[in-house]
Amino acid sequence: MTPVPIALGPHADPLLMEAIVRGGGEWAPMADARALVWAAEPDRFPDDLPESIRWVQLYSAGVEDWFTAGIIARHPDVVWTSAAGAFAATVAEHAFALLLAGVRALPEHLAATTWRQREFFDKVGTLRGARVAIIGAGGIGRALIPMLASVGAIVVAVNRSGRPVPGAAETLAADRVDEVFGRVDHVVVAAPATAATRHLVGAPQIAELGPRSWLINVARGSLVDTDALVTALRDNTIGGAGLDVTDPEPLPDGHPLWTLPNAIITPHDSNPPAVRPPAFADHVATNVQRFVAGEELLARIDPVAGY
Amino acid sequence: MTPVPIALGPHADPLLMEAIVRGGGEWAPMADARALVWAAEPDRFPDDLPESIRWVQLYSAGVEDWFTAGIIARHPDVVWTSAAGAFAATVAEHAFALLLAGVRALPEHLAATTWRQREFFDKVGTLRGARVAIIGAGGIGRALIPMLASVGAIVVAVNRSGRPVPGAAETLAADRVDEVFGRVDHVVVAAPATAATRHLVGAPQIAELGPRSWLINVARGSLVDTDALVTALRDNTIGGAGLDVTDPEPLPDGHPLWTLPNAIITPHDSNPPAVRPPAFADHVATNVQRFVAGEELLARIDPVAGY
Repeated sequence: MTPVPIALGPHADPLLMEAIVRGGGEWAPMADARALVWAAEPDRFPDDLPESIRWVQLYSAGVEDWFTAGIIARHPDVVWTSAAGAFAATVAEHAFALLLAGVRALPEHLAATTWRQREFFDKVGTLRGARVAIIGAGGIGRALIPMLASVGAIVVAVNRSGRPVPGAAETLAADRVDEVFGRVDHVVVAAPATAATRHLVGAPQIAELGPRSWLINVARGSLVDTDALVTALRDNTIGGAGLDVTDPEPLPDGHPLWTLPNAIITPHDSNPPAVRPPAFADHVATNVQRFVAGEELLARIDPVAGY
Repeated sequence: MTPVPIALGPHADPLLMEAIVRGGGEWAPMADARALVWAAEPDRFPDDLPESIRWVQLYSAGVEDWFTAGIIARHPDVVWTSAAGAFAATVAEHAFALLLAGVRALPEHLAATTWRQREFFDKVGTLRGARVAIIGAGGIGRALIPMLASVGAIVVAVNRSGRPVPGAAETLAADRVDEVFGRVDHVVVAAPATAATRHLVGAPQIAELGPRSWLINVARGSLVDTDALVTALRDNTIGGAGLDVTDPEPLPDGHPLWTLPNAIITPHDSNPPAVRPPAFADHVATNVQRFVAGEELLARIDPVAGY
């Protein structure tokens, strides 16, 4: 098969060049290309696109600026895709790191200054055979499933429809989310923030968790009732919490979550800028592959819906 | 297929009952059984075994006591298996937790008491695309490979023969181990302690690692030169170290490793007693399955070699 010619703008990043080739394309100047991968903001985007360009891949997950700038409306015959989902695995890895650190009692280990093996024997747990709820089986939740499977954890997924999520032992519909807390060992929150998901994890839900349960939040702070969580952490009614997002955010100085020994706070840094390029390159490679094969592209932008 | 009758001693543990069934066997009294799973010390082992018993599965990885007690010699026609390897995945999970915690800068996050997102953006890394050396591709090393693969890391294995390890992008023979340090991002030590592996990781090897590299040791303390490691951690020439084993061990009070901010010390607790039963049950299920199928059993004891 002849490689499909694909242009790269505003400059020829080697990581993206490689991704285009990996996906079955080859780099080409804009005039000869059938698609364009654009790794910058809208302000430098060319005013005109050659007619040969059928698809444009953008670099960011949110594309409001592209709509505001009128660029997408100006090219109604072009298929646009965003980077939505490209960083899901990066955030999932962070959630997994927080959960494993909790289960293996790393915060307490880090605080220790003497060899207390016998004491730690009762504190170190395992994810093997543990039941882990993933609330919100979107990109992040689905990316987390193979990670949990690799250590032998059993996944209980919660999604909107309740339609079975591949790799999950069980899937519950969102309207049954309250049932999940009493049936799992740990909970990872990865659902979007909406009016319906505000304080989805509150005092009644936390009360269903056990004294060795860890609660991980990599979604939005508002999904967890912070005061209820602080109470549970203080009373040790749960094992701990790993939070990449908080409410309020940024977490103010002096907030109890900073110093509770069973809380791990990361300041919404699960997807740092420096690690985005390789993740985006993988996304590009997948979309080039799909473009070459004539398949549906990932993260296609809906010009009417505006995202 | 009729389930194969298997006895359980000294008492009928439900987890092991379930494992026997899972493997395709069924519980039977000793007199009717073709195999025996013995989940206790040698002192309570029956003096005589019915002739129908062809295989005995023991609970521990080390079986010196069974040889000393003369029990294995007394039953030359029986196949004996130990629990060697049963806990490999548990230890691998611990190594993985230490590595992920390091790469995601969790020790520094735990020490923080204010929201420093920008600063942490430069500290949080990813295992995606990272090259991780596993030195010693025995049970623990091999169990670690799918975990690393689940987050997109690339494994470079080091084993005695250099024969390719499944799942590793590259395998080096032990006599080339020094080459590996300059070619990977992180190193996990999981090799046996012998005269040849003493200080396998010393100052020259550590010097090849980068300022974001983590060194994980879940094997034996003697494999790493502690003084050289302390110097590297103090000078921040490497990212950090996660140690479940130390030299000396136990690590004495006041040792610098206790308070270095880039060291995570766990007091040889990666395989705590409480998490052993489910891991042993999985081992039993696998061996029952192999016994039923007439296949080679895992961790077969060599009555002549004495292990």
